[in-house]
Amino acid sequence: MLTRKERDPLGEKEVPRDAYYGIQTLRAAENFQITNLRIHPELIKSLAYVKKAAASVNIEIGMLNEKIGKAIIQATDEVINGSLNEEFIVDALQGGAGTSINMNMNEVLANRAIEILGGEKGDYSLVHPNNHVNMGQSTNDVYPTAIRITAIKLLRRALEELSSMYGALTRKSGEFDHIIKMGRTQLQDAVPIRLGQEFGAYASAIKRDIRRIKETVADLKVVNLGATAIGTGLNADHEYVNNVTRRLNELTGLDLTQADDLIDATQNADALVEVSSALKTCAVNLSKIASDLRLLSSGPRAGLNEINLPAVPPGSSIMPGKVNPVIPEVVNQIAYQIIGNDTTITMAAESGQLELNVMIPVLTFNLFQSIEILKNGVKTFTEKAIEGITVNEERCKELVDKSVSIITAINPHVGYEVASRIAKKALKTGKSVKELILEEGVLNEEELKLILNPYEMTEPGIAGKELLEGH
Amino acid sequence: MLTRKERDPLGEKEVPRDAYYGIQTLRAAENFQITNLRIHPELIKSLAYVKKAAASVNIEIGMLNEKIGKAIIQATDEVINGSLNEEFIVDALQGGAGTSINMNMNEVLANRAIEILGGEKGDYSLVHPNNHVNMGQSTNDVYPTAIRITAIKLLRRALEELSSMYGALTRKSGEFDHIIKMGRTQLQDAVPIRLGQEFGAYASAIKRDIRRIKETVADLKVVNLGATAIGTGLNADHEYVNNVTRRLNELTGLDLTQADDLIDATQNADALVEVSSALKTCAVNLSKIASDLRLLSSGPRAGLNEINLPAVPPGSSIMPGKVNPVIPEVVNQIAYQIIGNDTTITMAAESGQLELNVMIPVLTFNLFQSIEILKNGVKTFTEKAIEGITVNEERCKELVDKSVSIITAINPHVGYEVASRIAKKALKTGKSVKELILEEGVLNEEELKLILNPYEMTEPGIAGKELLEGH
Amino acid sequence: MLTRKERDPLGEKEVPRDAYYGIQTLRAAENFQITNLRIHPELIKSLAYVKKAAASVNIEIGMLNEKIGKAIIQATDEVINGSLNEEFIVDALQGGAGTSINMNMNEVLANRAIEILGGEKGDYSLVHPNNHVNMGQSTNDVYPTAIRITAIKLLRRALEELSSMYGALTRKSGEFDHIIKMGRTQLQDAVPIRLGQEFGAYASAIKRDIRRIKETVADLKVVNLGATAIGTGLNADHEYVNNVTRRLNELTGLDLTQADDLIDATQNADALVEVSSALKTCAVNLSKIASDLRLLSSGPRAGLNEINLPAVPPGSSIMPGKVNPVIPEVVNQIAYQIIGNDTTITMAAESGQLELNVMIPVLTFNLFQSIEILKNGVKTFTEKAIEGITVNEERCKELVDKSVSIITAINPHVGYEVASRIAKKALKTGKSVKELILEEGVLNEEELKLILNPYEMTEPGIAGKELLEGH
Amino acid sequence: MLTRKERDPLGEKEVPRDAYYGIQTLRAAENFQITNLRIHPELIKSLAYVKKAAASVNIEIGMLNEKIGKAIIQATDEVINGSLNEEFIVDALQGGAGTSINMNMNEVLANRAIEILGGEKGDYSLVHPNNHVNMGQSTNDVYPTAIRITAIKLLRRALEELSSMYGALTRKSGEFDHIIKMGRTQLQDAVPIRLGQEFGAYASAIKRDIRRIKETVADLKVVNLGATAIGTGLNADHEYVNNVTRRLNELTGLDLTQADDLIDATQNADALVEVSSALKTCAVNLSKIASDLRLLSSGPRAGLNEINLPAVPPGSSIMPGKVNPVIPEVVNQIAYQIIGNDTTITMAAESGQLELNVMIPVLTFNLFQSIEILKNGVKTFTEKAIEGITVNEERCKELVDKSVSIITAINPHVGYEVASRIAKKALKTGKSVKELILEEGVLNEEELKLILNPYEMTEPGIAGKELLEGH
Repeated sequence: MLTRKERDPLGEKEVPRDAYYGIQTLRAAENFQITNLRIHPELIKSLAYVKKAAASVNIEIGMLNEKIGKAIIQATDEVINGSLNEEFIVDALQGGAGTSINMNMNEVLANRAIEILGGEKGDYSLVHPNNHVNMGQSTNDVYPTAIRITAIKLLRRALEELSSMYGALTRKSGEFDHIIKMGRTQLQDAVPIRLGQEFGAYASAIKRDIRRIKETVADLKVVNLGATAIGTGLNADHEYVNNVTRRLNELTGLDLTQADDLIDATQNADALVEVSSALKTCAVNLSKIASDLRLLSSGPRAGLNEINLPAVPPGSSIMPGKVNPVIPEVVNQIAYQIIGNDTTITMAAESGQLELNVMIPVLTFNLFQSIEILKNGVKTFTEKAIEGITVNEERCKELVDKSVSIITAINPHVGYEVASRIAKKALKTGKSVKELILEEGVLNEEELKLILNPYEMTEPGIAGKELLEGH
Repeated sequence: MLTRKERDPLGEKEVPRDAYYGIQTLRAAENFQITNLRIHPELIKSLAYVKKAAASVNIEIGMLNEKIGKAIIQATDEVINGSLNEEFIVDALQGGAGTSINMNMNEVLANRAIEILGGEKGDYSLVHPNNHVNMGQSTNDVYPTAIRITAIKLLRRALEELSSMYGALTRKSGEFDHIIKMGRTQLQDAVPIRLGQEFGAYASAIKRDIRRIKETVADLKVVNLGATAIGTGLNADHEYVNNVTRRLNELTGLDLTQADDLIDATQNADALVEVSSALKTCAVNLSKIASDLRLLSSGPRAGLNEINLPAVPPGSSIMPGKVNPVIPEVVNQIAYQIIGNDTTITMAAESGQLELNVMIPVLTFNLFQSIEILKNGVKTFTEKAIEGITVNEERCKELVDKSVSIITAINPHVGYEVASRIAKKALKTGKSVKELILEEGVLNEEELKLILNPYEMTEPGIAGKELLEGH
Repeated sequence: MLTRKERDPLGEKEVPRDAYYGIQTLRAAENFQITNLRIHPELIKSLAYVKKAAASVNIEIGMLNEKIGKAIIQATDEVINGSLNEEFIVDALQGGAGTSINMNMNEVLANRAIEILGGEKGDYSLVHPNNHVNMGQSTNDVYPTAIRITAIKLLRRALEELSSMYGALTRKSGEFDHIIKMGRTQLQDAVPIRLGQEFGAYASAIKRDIRRIKETVADLKVVNLGATAIGTGLNADHEYVNNVTRRLNELTGLDLTQADDLIDATQNADALVEVSSALKTCAVNLSKIASDLRLLSSGPRAGLNEINLPAVPPGSSIMPGKVNPVIPEVVNQIAYQIIGNDTTITMAAESGQLELNVMIPVLTFNLFQSIEILKNGVKTFTEKAIEGITVNEERCKELVDKSVSIITAINPHVGYEVASRIAKKALKTGKSVKELILEEGVLNEEELKLILNPYEMTEPGIAGKELLEGH
Repeated sequence: MLTRKERDPLGEKEVPRDAYYGIQTLRAAENFQITNLRIHPELIKSLAYVKKAAASVNIEIGMLNEKIGKAIIQATDEVINGSLNEEFIVDALQGGAGTSINMNMNEVLANRAIEILGGEKGDYSLVHPNNHVNMGQSTNDVYPTAIRITAIKLLRRALEELSSMYGALTRKSGEFDHIIKMGRTQLQDAVPIRLGQEFGAYASAIKRDIRRIKETVADLKVVNLGATAIGTGLNADHEYVNNVTRRLNELTGLDLTQADDLIDATQNADALVEVSSALKTCAVNLSKIASDLRLLSSGPRAGLNEINLPAVPPGSSIMPGKVNPVIPEVVNQIAYQIIGNDTTITMAAESGQLELNVMIPVLTFNLFQSIEILKNGVKTFTEKAIEGITVNEERCKELVDKSVSIITAINPHVGYEVASRIAKKALKTGKSVKELILEEGVLNEEELKLILNPYEMTEPGIAGKELLEGH
């Protein structure tokens, strides 16, 4: 491999001659061989936008030579369109609060700008990674800002998928509104419910999640660009500080605002914990829905068997004909991942010290993973499971008809103790509740017909209230 | 012990003759001997309010005999004023989604009402725990409603303490605004900051927590009273369902609203996860502040020693004169407890099945503990640590004067590489940055005076920018 | 309240005249009002044993005046027998790595010893909490040692309950060995299994837990008594250091050993994380068993209904006749608590700094709670659920007979694809697998009889292998 | 792209013509687009070993045609040597308890074997993925077995790195044994310690971790191969069941044993939780060491500055000369990741249901990541930080000399209260402890010389005990 020689405060080193990254990137890549996964490409893009905004303002206020600045801006555009992706080689987990990825970016932009200006890569006298590309900046403001932009963008896509899921659940709720089935509490037969009501409840939960996740975006929009190293804004020109966030908004189409308290915004990561918490809460609801669908589709012969999930997997490697609920199963797993990630994120956020939280890389790695797998999981859940669910109406009806606990409806008419006695007898003898009530003369057929109406039981009210008033 | 005989669907049992609780409570107390801690007293009170509202509406709509109803209401008042506290004997951790505590309440109210009406405890023909006290209700709606009321009340007290802390931090921020000291990132010397800015950042973080916790109360205000067993409202009269939440608001002074989707509101606990998440996020910030104060007060001779915490503890049992930062230490521990509780709460919420989440007791146990220890910890932190903090001004100044990294300010004037070389030399030789800059003729004394001004370094801007423009 | 005046390095203070605790305890109790729960009584007892061993050795080696020493020893005995329980008033959560509880003990023992010697409480010139009671000790060695003794004792009781559970599961495994039922994977019908095999698997898992928990006791037996403040043993006489652990063993009947590396043993809490991890792993198994029993007993009409749990709770407050699986439900909740506690314990252990881990109080609070609720939960689970489980044999048989997935057994005879086609047809038509196989002439009746034998399917082997060999 | 047509129970589908994987793999890859990460290559290899062992035994016992079997075996060898790596395309997170990866393997081996036998890919009449490759197997036994093999292999490499770290710490302990420095508890100055003792304590902790991780391997060695679908061994020939684990040992050089209780071994994942717990406990110790090193190297001017970490990173992007402790920082982050992963693993293990735990893929994904990043982090920590640590001896000495808390050593001579009074005065006046003791005539110079000897203070014993005995 052909190389060029570069130098940094630690000494000299050979860098691949064609690489746009430089010596500091190479050191970082060698220092951190931890996950062998790279930085999320959307974060690279967001960081490039930040660099572009900085260069643009620095030119405008006369701090940055226009020729150099324009070359840098052209380089940022190339990063944004993805053509330099392979140059970002540092590990997703890294020490140093993001310095490695910031320097990776500074070097790539500098070398590409040098090239644009007709120079040789590595000749930082033309465009310097720190003096020109990083002008008025610190890792400690550009990196958190880029993280927030990335999170906002990724969350938007996740929210779209959640909206689709909400739509699908709502449609299913309508489609299944006429299906009366047994409700279950504590896995024990309770009182009747409509399948449509169950899916409606799923939709309601997801609606809350959508609102909750959206709300977290508000805190994300507060950025600390201009804060430089510790929030005091040292080495950032006043005009730069006052204009760079606005410029970033023009470039990204976002409506970011500069934090009122830049010191706080530089050292604290609670806004990211807030996002993770909302994802975790959503994961709780998704996992509950997934578990429900697995219960309701259990069987086909030795389970509840009330609904059917679409048969997406070919099934078991040994048991022919077995079609497993693999989609909800992966949703449960995604939920566990997001919940575990939240523990990591919380610990990372709790470990801030004084002017900086140095644990942001692991926090970000987990946060972006959580958003991405939530998005992918929700899309998969919607398209490959929820939308294709069908019902076994006969089975639902049969279970209601056999039920003992529908006796609950006669409580207001005969009291808890009488109802209780009959229920016990029904369970013991296997006889139906109806049969026993008539047999014992507790109520007559006409009364029963008014009271034991499963459909009415699925809405508020005392079944057969007119009888009660007659008393 | 004198006893009376009671009967329930499982058979007969002796109950202490003077007890207001009855046979089902006794069974529950025997079944669950887990933590040997009782239900939070505020939850008992909230549940009594719910029972009072229910009885009141049931009388009004003619479902409940007025004499019986009034006796029940009188009994709820006695529970609310605390005089029956000893009658609530079930364990904080219990199976059954709260049935045990609901039946404990139903029995206590029934027996007290019986007594009021001149009957003998245990003679449920006068007032029946299920038929009269629990009329139109289910554990599955009264218990979640009482939990929400309790959480709202406890959170209000916690928020008051957070507001006091915010005030104290803001006052300290003003008091310390003139103290220039070294900022530190990654525990390494960074650039100057004012101690007031540090305390201001703490205040800013707590302000965000206050807002965040307040926002979670919104979701808590949505209750499912009227939902009965599974949200369908079976056995709850229409008029009851439409009026009971309003009545509860009149009694409690809260502005609760009935959930639009009672099915969803009965089975999902995500609103409680949301609260726990906000507490956890607050814990993250509190713990970070506590850790910072421990770092800044470390020493006195072999640590940073910039600030002094009030000496509240008598110190070490073996090392005389040692005064330890015990208050921030307990704050860190509270944070770990709240974070661990959040894991439990998340798992409990994730375990809902179909129409109900049966794991609510453990969720509630942890949630209430989190709120309480947060409240107590914040109060302690404010009153016994933050308010009494003093500064070692001389020490702060000395560390700034010795600093090498203030060289950052000369970057815009001489470039990163020159600055870097001088910094290295300073560290190696022990000489001051100023001395070396002059020695090497990089800048002259006048220029240095303009650039190396620690106070100016604590605000945005390029120190000595006028020089730069002169170039 | 009558008081006496005491003094400590922070100044004077009134202490209740009859209290055995003194001024430092009172300050600690005032400083820490966090959980309003006290230190675990077993920990108080263990700490008294440590104090007794220390005093005894100190007398022996001539460091402690015999009269004073004997009075201290007498006082420790009174603490051990519980008669001074009310004197330990400090909060379970406290800053200071245990100093508060150590000083609480030192003061109680000193004052009681003073009394024994005929003095007035508070006259520390007779017996001094630090100089005499705490002689050769530091909080940092006596407290961790007492924690380990406590954990060992509590774990022993938990292990007894786990052994009882293992016995009960093994007995049930035998009792149910003849019951053939459907096995289920992914909640879908799989192939036959015997109920006895299922309970045998539960027993096997618990056996592993017992072994695992026992193994953690080994690390717990290594104590740092003699380490004093930071493990260097400063102020502890050589002879004391060499003899105190042996003396402690004589008093407690344990076989503790002194750590080879006292520095390490004083600053690290990983042995406690190890214990919590073993409890957590056990909780995972317990929770899985509890969830299984809830599934298997679901119904009675609209669930699996294969087994019946004993009816310990009186049931629902609204639904008569409903008997809920409240015991396994509380077991799940205990598991979530233990898992959440493990997060807290892990964070506390991770927060050690240099020579000490100051977060031990919260770690201990959670660890002891985990052990206690595990013990209580296991006992409850065994006695109130497992031992009373009965089977619905008819139901088990019916589900096997209706099953489609027993077709798995014909794979080796006809291949996966043919079996798969027939399975699909069976599910579609509702016909039995047997019927279709004969109908399609895939196998004849005789062959089927050899192959589709549910009992044989529950043991390794290819059903009807003789036919195969015939091919 | 050229394709071939394949068929499975769900219908027909085009598969890339050159692909060794088949229709079921393609469906799985389409169904699960979650992480976009693939299965760990070591797991692919382990699964191939299992398949090889199965085919080998199946040939031997006459169940599998020799020609077909040998072709399968040749194919497994190619998977093991990595040449078919690109064919394993299913996502790391998948529903179905591993069926997707098992079928991916079955199809790749079948198609490669077909090719070897001169057939066309996709012509499963020659070699069938289920009938031949999967003969006598189920996903539910081959996948857990492969997981255990993989974990054992990865753990071995991690243990090697931990051993290297132990060696490095031990060497450093020796190298630094003569350096006397201040010990610190609660970040406050305590009593002297030797730097070598501190590093010795780190070594002791790591030694415990090594032992602990090794112990978990014992449980991992118990495999369920032969269990087939649910542990009953259905469709696995007796001879196969009895021989396949032995054959697997011959091929892998491991000493696996077949579980006594195959039902248990098929449904429970606690052995994997045990491994994760040991990793987590190790992470706790690593993180504590990393945090200590960051504290000790803090500064250089405004921190403790007792040690220097090697300067591996080029430093800050804005602050010249700043060299940050990036290696310990990444170690902390790895610890948080492992701890969060443990939460995910615990939840996955807890979610087993009846005969199977379907959440194993997410468990495995996290477990393997934990092992790998632990290994990489330990290697990096050792080589790039620990081995290159140097000491600032002067600074260590200076802090001891200035210390107040060395006064602890005079306790046994003058009592806690006198010592306490002098300590307070020293702190107030800034005078040295020595000076004040002499000034106040508490002890004379000769006595002080015997007592205040920092080196002696780092070992057990009462400094100046001879004086005491003189009293």
